[in-house]
Amino acid sequence: MVEPVSGLTVVKVGGSEGVDLDAVCDDVAKLTANGARLVLLHGGSSETNRVSTLLGHPPRFVTSPSGHQSRYTDRATLEVFEMVYCGKVNKGIVERLQARGVNAVGLSGLDGRLFEGRRKESVRTVEDGRVRVLHGDHTGVVERVNAPLLRLLLDNGYLPVLTPPAISHEGAAINVDGDRAAAAVAGAMGAEALLLLSNVRGLLSQFPDEGSLVRILERGCIEEAMAYAGGRMKKKLLGAREALEAGVRQVVLGDARRQWPVSAALAGEGTVLS
Amino acid sequence: MVEPVSGLTVVKVGGSEGVDLDAVCDDVAKLTANGARLVLLHGGSSETNRVSTLLGHPPRFVTSPSGHQSRYTDRATLEVFEMVYCGKVNKGIVERLQARGVNAVGLSGLDGRLFEGRRKESVRTVEDGRVRVLHGDHTGVVERVNAPLLRLLLDNGYLPVLTPPAISHEGAAINVDGDRAAAAVAGAMGAEALLLLSNVRGLLSQFPDEGSLVRILERGCIEEAMAYAGGRMKKKLLGAREALEAGVRQVVLGDARRQWPVSAALAGEGTVLS
Repeated sequence: MVEPVSGLTVVKVGGSEGVDLDAVCDDVAKLTANGARLVLLHGGSSETNRVSTLLGHPPRFVTSPSGHQSRYTDRATLEVFEMVYCGKVNKGIVERLQARGVNAVGLSGLDGRLFEGRRKESVRTVEDGRVRVLHGDHTGVVERVNAPLLRLLLDNGYLPVLTPPAISHEGAAINVDGDRAAAAVAGAMGAEALLLLSNVRGLLSQFPDEGSLVRILERGCIEEAMAYAGGRMKKKLLGAREALEAGVRQVVLGDARRQWPVSAALAGEGTVLS
Repeated sequence: MVEPVSGLTVVKVGGSEGVDLDAVCDDVAKLTANGARLVLLHGGSSETNRVSTLLGHPPRFVTSPSGHQSRYTDRATLEVFEMVYCGKVNKGIVERLQARGVNAVGLSGLDGRLFEGRRKESVRTVEDGRVRVLHGDHTGVVERVNAPLLRLLLDNGYLPVLTPPAISHEGAAINVDGDRAAAAVAGAMGAEALLLLSNVRGLLSQFPDEGSLVRILERGCIEEAMAYAGGRMKKKLLGAREALEAGVRQVVLGDARRQWPVSAALAGEGTVLS
């Protein structure tokens, strides 16, 4: 680990419908103008679905035996994924931030081996109640973060805007979960807080009832919450647990559909884990 | 200008049909392993044409009264441009280099305001022999390069892989010519050489006859060569002249369809301007 960046916050913004990137960038500009040190990480799933369908290669999702849903990523999908995540979304966020006076630099996990990990060439999936093995998958898990490169950028006044894919130990692009990549970044940088913002208010005890927000989740209760977590929330809980285990003091699952979404999560709105 | 990087070579690889990116990356890996200091810049025009046509927004080219052809870039085109240049092509090159042991970092001109310039909101075009003015164009010219950021990366062992778009002074993405952006980078970094590699052997005195290669072009003869330069070569000559004026010692217009294309150009194969 590099020397921790004092007061660093890692913010992950999901790529689902409803997420307001302009509101996120307004807030990031306000916070950094007031001296906050941030690293931003983003998704792009709904736009990837749209573009890959237009390009004649509709998305395919698989559900693992343990109930986690993920994108099946063959090589053609990976290239659309890179177009949307590294091209359209990443540069769109960098442009928004630059227009607001924030000196953003956008990087993928490939660049400087920022997110390096193990490729899982096959994935187990449950279809019609039976477990099958799918090959040719370009996915994996982040095992190492190039923290010195992020530190170099932060120390020189740049705000890193990060996105999957990651890179395998052999040097091939692999799709990785963005929430868990953000957790790995927060852990490697010694961040004080990790904010996982998406198109829900936080963890819901009766998904999808937004009135059932869990305001505080003790670390010991994460396993239990996995059982009732709906949608993409299981992966966020996994990421939250990994960040806490890596020494991050606080994780907040917050809402990116509102004004000042980063400030709200920093103020404890959403589900707080510490 | 930052302190010049001793022996730096800026290599621009075009994005036309026939360009062999694997051969370029093989060569870059060999040269950097032998201590060469390189900055790479790339295009992506043919892939952008293909993807934008698939996405229902076919490319539109305009010819200026002085005979230069360029892409008319409305906002929708700009987003496809970013997907292909910053996503697919940039990350594809970074992945190839990483797999070959080169610690590449891919950046667009938006990142850290790497290429900053003036937006030209309208463009003059000749259609059916008449000059028309088209508005809503997102193009411009690079006026400033963030050389300290490139220097920071080089000094820390990273090989920068750069791509348009650039950023306007107001913070909006603008399409700029890659050859002229490469010339601006070479000038700002105090590079010794600029190699402009594409899918031709070099400047042809009887375009498209590849037997008519001009091996050496004196600086005083560039204006004259503009008259007979075919295809995209006019822009390359403009870039070459700008680089020489900025103090770059040698510019080579070389062939990226062959094995060891960078070494060949460094050895003077193609059209040499100095």
